[in-house]
Amino acid sequence: MDKKIITGRIRTVRRQLDKRRIRCLVLTRPANVTYVTGFLGDDSWAVVAAGRVVLLTDSRYTEQAQQECPRCKIIERTGSLSEALAKLLKRLKSVRTVTVEESTSLADFEQMKKAVKARLKTAANVIEPIRSVKDKSELAAIRAAVAISNRALEHTLPNIQPGITESELAGMLDFQIRKLGASNAFETIVAFGPNASRPHHQPGKKKLRKKDTVLIDFGAKYKGYCSDITRCFAMGSMTALYRRVYDVVEQAQAAAIEAIRPGVKLTEVDAAARQVIKKSNLPVYSHGTGHGFGLEIHEIPFLKPEANPQDALRQGTLQPGQVLTIEPGIYMPGKLGVRIEDDILVTETGRNILTRQCPHSPVLP
Amino acid sequence: MDKKIITGRIRTVRRQLDKRRIRCLVLTRPANVTYVTGFLGDDSWAVVAAGRVVLLTDSRYTEQAQQECPRCKIIERTGSLSEALAKLLKRLKSVRTVTVEESTSLADFEQMKKAVKARLKTAANVIEPIRSVKDKSELAAIRAAVAISNRALEHTLPNIQPGITESELAGMLDFQIRKLGASNAFETIVAFGPNASRPHHQPGKKKLRKKDTVLIDFGAKYKGYCSDITRCFAMGSMTALYRRVYDVVEQAQAAAIEAIRPGVKLTEVDAAARQVIKKSNLPVYSHGTGHGFGLEIHEIPFLKPEANPQDALRQGTLQPGQVLTIEPGIYMPGKLGVRIEDDILVTETGRNILTRQCPHSPVLP
Repeated sequence: MDKKIITGRIRTVRRQLDKRRIRCLVLTRPANVTYVTGFLGDDSWAVVAAGRVVLLTDSRYTEQAQQECPRCKIIERTGSLSEALAKLLKRLKSVRTVTVEESTSLADFEQMKKAVKARLKTAANVIEPIRSVKDKSELAAIRAAVAISNRALEHTLPNIQPGITESELAGMLDFQIRKLGASNAFETIVAFGPNASRPHHQPGKKKLRKKDTVLIDFGAKYKGYCSDITRCFAMGSMTALYRRVYDVVEQAQAAAIEAIRPGVKLTEVDAAARQVIKKSNLPVYSHGTGHGFGLEIHEIPFLKPEANPQDALRQGTLQPGQVLTIEPGIYMPGKLGVRIEDDILVTETGRNILTRQCPHSPVLP
Repeated sequence: MDKKIITGRIRTVRRQLDKRRIRCLVLTRPANVTYVTGFLGDDSWAVVAAGRVVLLTDSRYTEQAQQECPRCKIIERTGSLSEALAKLLKRLKSVRTVTVEESTSLADFEQMKKAVKARLKTAANVIEPIRSVKDKSELAAIRAAVAISNRALEHTLPNIQPGITESELAGMLDFQIRKLGASNAFETIVAFGPNASRPHHQPGKKKLRKKDTVLIDFGAKYKGYCSDITRCFAMGSMTALYRRVYDVVEQAQAAAIEAIRPGVKLTEVDAAARQVIKKSNLPVYSHGTGHGFGLEIHEIPFLKPEANPQDALRQGTLQPGQVLTIEPGIYMPGKLGVRIEDDILVTETGRNILTRQCPHSPVLP
């Protein structure tokens, strides 16, 4: 991880801590630990206090941390994380109050309470809002993850032939992602025919038939950063119903993408897509219209019909540098499911569709 | 999910609740939700109270839940999980105290506190000890996951040839797992040469060379259940050092497996492996000797040098029906890493190595 970039992040984080009067922050959420340290492993906490960042990890990860973390002190713990935290805090005598992330489990918090002498407080959304606006190196990693996804899907398309199972097709796509040097951002969804009406269908033994339809929802993870794309295809030709549904979803997506610009309300972007489907008299999807992503596959901002208290930062509006998905869908159980998902960067003046190169011609030969 | 099996599980859970005087239990940990309901999706909680089990889920999962959950009432929420919980509890008027799993996040607990009128308490290890002893259907799923891993590795071995990258090899193995109808239990680790000294190495662009070594740590997930296997290979022949290290790790593993029987202390099994390495004057691994697995890849029991309060159930001993890994290793940064991991079932009289069929001839042609 680049030293300059981490230095910049730590400066921003520290400004935020000053503003919220947090003197010592304990990060337990893996993505937040990664953000302030560069460390890509697991089972580790980060402490931001007294002008420095400390990573509490264990011997499985020490070698990796030394390579990945240019700006933080690495402590190799032998006991529990709470014990390591307590030891560290003992040395930072000036720290009387310690702020812990609200995503921490009750069990870990109880252990901290027992081990640590300082007063414990909790806070939410300290790092997340900073993390939602991507810096240069993050955008580069996201663009690379997107490029890998695009190519992986391109290489997989010729294999979409009658007889292949959902599970095999998912495996082929995953292999292409691996071959290109990335891993999966999440478990690939491949759904044939009516299976696509379940937005979170798990690929199974179902075989593709001659005139079937295919939904693929997948993403690559590269240098810790995700992409997230959904495409729908029909073999040979589309039925009239599928064609109508596909067109409406495409229009709904275009409307939401069109609505993206700095300062626009999240609920407004959500409504833009939902209204198109409502007008068509087809069933409106009940999931969100999109979500931010980066180190995590789901991050703020979340596009939902109602304003989310979690997103109530900056009046629940989009900011330049945020990256999010737009993914409306139409689901008719027993019949079909169509969802189209692209990745969008909010720019200073509007938007930039990062996934434009990803194959989206919906009829396969 | 089989109705009889779920009924049996719920009976066992209820007995445990009576014993601990828990009248209403809220499960937030995904594996525990799956265990009592059969539901394999995400973002859902289960409530065990007043003689019934309720699943709080959302519209993305309703169809799936109806197929997977034979014995529980399914509530499709529209608001937050906490709001859905509050609504449900309002109808269960006799419930005055609600017990929440300690793995719940502070944020979720705060939301529950605001939404729910009943008194909230926390509890740890209510479902986990029950879940650590596998029932028939769980053992069948684990055996199937193991069989798939074995075959997937077998089919991948011919591809271990000079020039292949770590990432490609991981991708090929993952593809075989998919082809056999399963998914990854966790992100496959492939490490060539000295990269194997990092127990959690992430596969990269490194190419295999003629006389290189290969470490593969992988697992399949089938019907929700995991397998977890590590194998080490040398291309053509082993160096004297690698051979010595490999032999010692193999002996250490054999000693720990030999020690497995009902009633044996977890620390005793751990020590059996560690002692062999200590005696050899090679560096002793600092991770645990093994861990239980099932719906999760890491579950109780955990084999560590010190007794773990989490495992202090039944005096920290093994019980028949538990399934765990044995995976000692030797790591010499810059030089090599060797770990051998098998999956063991604790039987009434001793042990059963489930992964015996998995390729383990350490020299590849």
